[in-house]
Amino acid sequence: MSETLNTTKVHNYSAGPCILPNEVFQQASQAVLEYKTTGLSILEMSHRSKEMVAMAENAVALVKEILGVPSGYSVLFLQGGASLQFYMSALNFLPINGKGGYLDTGVWSNKAIKEAKRLGNIEVLASSKDKNYNYIPKGYAVPSDLDFLHYTTNNTIYGTEFFHTPKTDSVLISDMSSDIFSRPINVADYGLIYAGAQKNLGPAGVTLAIVKDELLGKTGRDIPAMLDYKIHVEGESMYNTPPVYSIYVSMLTLEWLKKNGGIAWMDKRNQAKADLLYGEIDRNPMFVGTAEKEDRSRMNATFVLANDALDNTFSAMLDQANISGLKGHRSVGGFRASMYNALPLESVQVLVDVMNEFERTQG
Amino acid sequence: MSETLNTTKVHNYSAGPCILPNEVFQQASQAVLEYKTTGLSILEMSHRSKEMVAMAENAVALVKEILGVPSGYSVLFLQGGASLQFYMSALNFLPINGKGGYLDTGVWSNKAIKEAKRLGNIEVLASSKDKNYNYIPKGYAVPSDLDFLHYTTNNTIYGTEFFHTPKTDSVLISDMSSDIFSRPINVADYGLIYAGAQKNLGPAGVTLAIVKDELLGKTGRDIPAMLDYKIHVEGESMYNTPPVYSIYVSMLTLEWLKKNGGIAWMDKRNQAKADLLYGEIDRNPMFVGTAEKEDRSRMNATFVLANDALDNTFSAMLDQANISGLKGHRSVGGFRASMYNALPLESVQVLVDVMNEFERTQG
Repeated sequence: MSETLNTTKVHNYSAGPCILPNEVFQQASQAVLEYKTTGLSILEMSHRSKEMVAMAENAVALVKEILGVPSGYSVLFLQGGASLQFYMSALNFLPINGKGGYLDTGVWSNKAIKEAKRLGNIEVLASSKDKNYNYIPKGYAVPSDLDFLHYTTNNTIYGTEFFHTPKTDSVLISDMSSDIFSRPINVADYGLIYAGAQKNLGPAGVTLAIVKDELLGKTGRDIPAMLDYKIHVEGESMYNTPPVYSIYVSMLTLEWLKKNGGIAWMDKRNQAKADLLYGEIDRNPMFVGTAEKEDRSRMNATFVLANDALDNTFSAMLDQANISGLKGHRSVGGFRASMYNALPLESVQVLVDVMNEFERTQG
Repeated sequence: MSETLNTTKVHNYSAGPCILPNEVFQQASQAVLEYKTTGLSILEMSHRSKEMVAMAENAVALVKEILGVPSGYSVLFLQGGASLQFYMSALNFLPINGKGGYLDTGVWSNKAIKEAKRLGNIEVLASSKDKNYNYIPKGYAVPSDLDFLHYTTNNTIYGTEFFHTPKTDSVLISDMSSDIFSRPINVADYGLIYAGAQKNLGPAGVTLAIVKDELLGKTGRDIPAMLDYKIHVEGESMYNTPPVYSIYVSMLTLEWLKKNGGIAWMDKRNQAKADLLYGEIDRNPMFVGTAEKEDRSRMNATFVLANDALDNTFSAMLDQANISGLKGHRSVGGFRASMYNALPLESVQVLVDVMNEFERTQG
């Protein structure tokens, strides 16, 4: 049994919640029966027990180590997903009468813009809406009077990803839900990074936030306790009962990542997976990639069939090969191969083999 | 092995997250390895897969059946705990220029009051602060111009519980985090019931809300999407990625409750546990209950030793008997026995035996 394939060898291309390492499932399953030798299931343990406090501290330490988080930043495990962060980030970083700049690269950027507009002056600096978000805007002007610039690093639905860091003199905020831990980042560039866990970090139910402490408390706003990063920093993510099990499984996933070589290892692995799949998309005349080549996401490869009358045929071949989750998002159609961290290269090879077979039999 | 004791027979009196049924742990552990025969761990399955949609629908149906939720109400599984509900409930039920009434029965009521005050006119109708919240206020006047009345049914720290339903012509809102599913309630009395799951429902990481649909959308406020019950009602709790595993374990716990006889069974069982423990507290001269007798919580029994110099001796005897989690909250001191739904009568008997032994050896 391979380290990263689940027991029955389904090749899990789900766009999220998505595949996690198989050894994580083993440990996560055991902890539900008994956590270490406590005599208790992890699900019935107080978050303030010494075991759970130590576990949560370890999760924070792993994030800091793996991403190289500099001093002056806090690592938080929150609830509500990126969707709550859309509002919360603006609430904590947009001063009354301030101005926020946004890059519009799809549905998730748009939701962030919509929530921020409830709070004040928001300017969309660039958008790729004209081509259904199949590219990443470049060469846009960044006003000098921004309080922050917000962007979405990876766009799951359209299969695009930022390979440059936007330049701004203001605070940089990024939704990294779907590519955090997939490649090196320079945390010091950011005032706030947030990410729903359910792609590369862990199961649904927890949200990672990495925030620069000195930037907090400066908006002049009255912020509800649960929406105030400062409160969560002071409470070390235990202002209220945290999502203990989701944090635990995230911690296990981070241990797996560290043990195997950390971000450098993962960066290479993800490049190899992307090279293999995009290579086949470009070589095989039966397939057409939908994103601009230079902006192609390493996490989500989107493509359509040259002849979409064969969609059902191809889908049936995927089923037969135990490949699941390849259907494209309803707003784009076609197919989407989500190759998150835990997906092994061997699963991509199985997909490429099916694509070859499809060409041989249907071409 | 008893159905409700964990494998190594720790008697888990944790105030929350707390004990859940042992058979739930077995199923919850297996699902982490493989959910049914999908070939996938539940932690890597899309929340929009047909299996997870069916699971979430079943959880909603079980809540409705077990509590007898009338038509016109929606059952939601949210994130952020009661702490986020403190703000969200007022945001959705307090019209601009409206007035909310609160009953102050301790720390959690106070946090709810504090969050609501950010939004407008809040009147505290009654408080038991004068005696460190060791009783439930009665005979308080309820103004006729309230938009809602909010109260906390059970107060974990002080060991008090409402055994009456406050009378008001306005909308009734209740934080039932620590006694929901422990006894019958008449949902039709309420405009909103909310509860963090981590006592009688499931693990940490999910929040139950039961809301009367026709009351929503009437405040005149601009409500952020993630804080708007209406959005979650329309999205059937899948406006964004829900905390899938916490919902699943809650669903298993509800199945266990239903199979064993539902609320009627649990009501009797909790009464038997409370009678046994409070009977011993009142009989045994070594112990003094701290809450007013008529307001004693069936979920959390608080008591001190007649001679607190013996605290360490008693604590050592608890450890020896594998009784965990009995330390009182730091704001009250002494001891607190949390007897949530899944705690079996047999664990209460073990505690009572220790109390007897304590009297025999130290009295």
